Amino acid sequence: MKTKVNYLKEINLDNPILIEGLPGVGHIGKLAAEHLIDELDAEKTAEIFSPHLPPQVIVNDDGVARLVRIEIYTAKIQDHENDLILVVGDHQSVENAGHFEIAEKILEIAEQNNTQKIYTIGGLATGEMSDTPKIYGAVNEHYPKKELTEKDVVFEQGKPKGGIIGASGLLLGIKTKKQIPAACLMGETSGYIVDPASAQKILRTISKLLNIEIDTKELEERANEMEEVVSKIKQKHQEQQQPQPTGDDLRYIG
Amino acid sequence: MKTKVNYLKEINLDNPILIEGLPGVGHIGKLAAEHLIDELDAEKTAEIFSPHLPPQVIVNDDGVARLVRIEIYTAKIQDHENDLILVVGDHQSVENAGHFEIAEKILEIAEQNNTQKIYTIGGLATGEMSDTPKIYGAVNEHYPKKELTEKDVVFEQGKPKGGIIGASGLLLGIKTKKQIPAACLMGETSGYIVDPASAQKILRTISKLLNIEIDTKELEERANEMEEVVSKIKQKHQEQQQPQPTGDDLRYIG
Amino acid sequence: MKTKVNYLKEINLDNPILIEGLPGVGHIGKLAAEHLIDELDAEKTAEIFSPHLPPQVIVNDDGVARLVRIEIYTAKIQDHENDLILVVGDHQSVENAGHFEIAEKILEIAEQNNTQKIYTIGGLATGEMSDTPKIYGAVNEHYPKKELTEKDVVFEQGKPKGGIIGASGLLLGIKTKKQIPAACLMGETSGYIVDPASAQKILRTISKLLNIEIDTKELEERANEMEEVVSKIKQKHQEQQQPQPTGDDLRYIG
Amino acid sequence: MKTKVNYLKEINLDNPILIEGLPGVGHIGKLAAEHLIDELDAEKTAEIFSPHLPPQVIVNDDGVARLVRIEIYTAKIQDHENDLILVVGDHQSVENAGHFEIAEKILEIAEQNNTQKIYTIGGLATGEMSDTPKIYGAVNEHYPKKELTEKDVVFEQGKPKGGIIGASGLLLGIKTKKQIPAACLMGETSGYIVDPASAQKILRTISKLLNIEIDTKELEERANEMEEVVSKIKQKHQEQQQPQPTGDDLRYIG
Repeated sequence: MKTKVNYLKEINLDNPILIEGLPGVGHIGKLAAEHLIDELDAEKTAEIFSPHLPPQVIVNDDGVARLVRIEIYTAKIQDHENDLILVVGDHQSVENAGHFEIAEKILEIAEQNNTQKIYTIGGLATGEMSDTPKIYGAVNEHYPKKELTEKDVVFEQGKPKGGIIGASGLLLGIKTKKQIPAACLMGETSGYIVDPASAQKILRTISKLLNIEIDTKELEERANEMEEVVSKIKQKHQEQQQPQPTGDDLRYIG
Repeated sequence: MKTKVNYLKEINLDNPILIEGLPGVGHIGKLAAEHLIDELDAEKTAEIFSPHLPPQVIVNDDGVARLVRIEIYTAKIQDHENDLILVVGDHQSVENAGHFEIAEKILEIAEQNNTQKIYTIGGLATGEMSDTPKIYGAVNEHYPKKELTEKDVVFEQGKPKGGIIGASGLLLGIKTKKQIPAACLMGETSGYIVDPASAQKILRTISKLLNIEIDTKELEERANEMEEVVSKIKQKHQEQQQPQPTGDDLRYIG
Repeated sequence: MKTKVNYLKEINLDNPILIEGLPGVGHIGKLAAEHLIDELDAEKTAEIFSPHLPPQVIVNDDGVARLVRIEIYTAKIQDHENDLILVVGDHQSVENAGHFEIAEKILEIAEQNNTQKIYTIGGLATGEMSDTPKIYGAVNEHYPKKELTEKDVVFEQGKPKGGIIGASGLLLGIKTKKQIPAACLMGETSGYIVDPASAQKILRTISKLLNIEIDTKELEERANEMEEVVSKIKQKHQEQQQPQPTGDDLRYIG
Repeated sequence: MKTKVNYLKEINLDNPILIEGLPGVGHIGKLAAEHLIDELDAEKTAEIFSPHLPPQVIVNDDGVARLVRIEIYTAKIQDHENDLILVVGDHQSVENAGHFEIAEKILEIAEQNNTQKIYTIGGLATGEMSDTPKIYGAVNEHYPKKELTEKDVVFEQGKPKGGIIGASGLLLGIKTKKQIPAACLMGETSGYIVDPASAQKILRTISKLLNIEIDTKELEERANEMEEVVSKIKQKHQEQQQPQPTGDDLRYIG
């Protein structure tokens, strides 16, 4: 088996913007992109299968097994000049070279559909819980940084320190013919937990960047539930010896 | 060397059903499929060799070495409309992508022989010894779940939690031209021991599903022997501190 | 780079017998084969380079670096109907599939030169020091076991338990067109040390099998030196808590 | 993605000498080669991208992400018959076979440009801090050792003990059509720290070998800063129990 795209229907999009939210630190990209799919009623138009994903089927709640995959959703937004391509999935590659192969497949889909911009979503793990998580940014040389700073996206030297690993990084870095402007949005997160609060904040930024409204109430509820967990963890941390997150462990961005 | 099939004789089967029992948790699939081969007097018709299997020969009791391999047996059952293809072997792939390659080879054989159904057999590790192990099921979208529930196969949300890894999963998930209906039968098992009792129970289910009689006496004897071991382990567990199986370790299904 | 053979001169051999002694447990194969090369004044006729060997150069004592490699030596023995091909090297493959690729290259050379028999040499680690190390044997289906038992090579059930890993196993197991008879000679060894005594014993067996004289004095000297080390280790073992070699660690045969 | 060279401009060089300084022990090669690039005002003429490098982008201080890469710089030195090719980069291969692929790409560039000599730079870790680090050498069979010994490069048996791993070794060992003379210069270093002092000493040797002047003041300043760190570490070591560097860990040369 080679990495391959399985189209479920013809894709016919106007000036699409691609948003990638594969699993990574805090599952911020995954939470944000899946929320977008729900809110925008996006439809699944393609699947990517790859021997670089884990050799595994996922069993759905009704007992039906399906191969681990990456999914391509597309959405049209009323009165908006840009359609959307949303990339989510069960896993990233489990092998070094597989990350490149999968990112190239996603970029191929982006190019074929005349994609105007790419946003990748990840988490930036700091090892600490923050009440007001920042959104950090990185861009490729074709994306004007100013577009992000105007929307309160933060650029800070040495953040992220270890670079951006996986699809969220490679979609910015791999050179393509069309030189699609691409930016990575990284939600500040502890790195210890799944973080809907940070995902919600990323979505607010995306809402401003795309100039679309996104109802994030559901994520807010999950964030509130998580906050209770967080406050319990904080309490525990104060009671116990503070753990020392190592730089290496926290570098993964997704 | 590429993954390749070495045919030992011409295969000529009527509407075969393929049963896979490669090594995995509790060796349930292996025990069950090898028992079937013995009971049905199946003959070996092909071997699969692969550079993704361990680079190793097995030395038989007479001192003769042979390459690690996967074996294809076939059997005809009197007055039964379906012949059988049985897949057993020494190992599964030791590399991620190799799992896909080997599963695709098995599916190729299935398709070439007009296979009507696929059953894969695995173990579902719970970390606990059970006196009455359940048989859990999973199906692909072409296999009617009802066929299994009628034979007391259990479908329970979150079981298996981590998906089905290896050939037992991939044979359900990899898409083929003929869309062969496929189901995975997973015997509940502790995950600590080789489990003939669970294998025996799977065979009873297979006996009902295929409507053939299978004498499982030999497995029962091994199960009784194992039960003594189990009761000793249980006793030890009660005396000592209960070990905590981790979710990760127990996910492997085979 | 692909695995490739670099011929240094034309090879022109009569009914050769191939002897493989790549690094493995106790370095028994390597010691024995290199000793043969010295004693028989064999000349190097080819080198195998492979990206599956470590990405490394070896620096010789004169400061000259050379790529890690496998070496093919050939020797003609006076009044003997069989010439010899000797396979030694710095390393075995560091990757699973690479073991197959390298073994296939060696078999290719064997076939092209009309090789009559293959002997592979390894060590069988027992975790214990033995004063009278046995030589264990394994054969492929084309090699008559009796030839070995007549020369005091031992066949014992469950030895080696975990099969024969690496080139010493694969050269027996990989199927070739000419079906060359092949046997593996495994010197009993502790698995803790380089073992010239066991290598010397293997050479005596090979001397009988090939009906050639081999002066093993040099190996005997090294064995005597090693024995002093062994007796010191034994003494230490008795003083301290006996270490428990695990089955897994000791399986590697080379 | 395959390993590929991305040319930024036409390369037109006279009898170039290639100097490789990819990351490795003590980052000596990287420090020395990057210093040369600065001092000689070398210009970047090509980049190598490879799926064997980490799947990662580096985020520059201005927030712009770029794919992990190897860089080829070229420089012309006034009144000097040899132009220079300088090879630096973010990483070496993270996979065994990838090391070979990347080294072959570098050698391809060397051959295409009629390269006369290759110098690779690495560190030789000794586990001890030295006030007067030696420069050890290794050559391939086409490079006259005398050229190095005349410039106080040391050849000592068993140094480096474990061979030279990675690009610094492979560029000497992989056979090419043109048989380019190649030497590896290894700065003695502890293996614990980034070592600008050793890099500075290597540059002095290179300065003599190439007969060009290289101002190493900047490296000297970094070396002095590092020396303070070193003396603190030494003090700590004396106060605490001396750590025992293992041979294996220290073998990597780069």
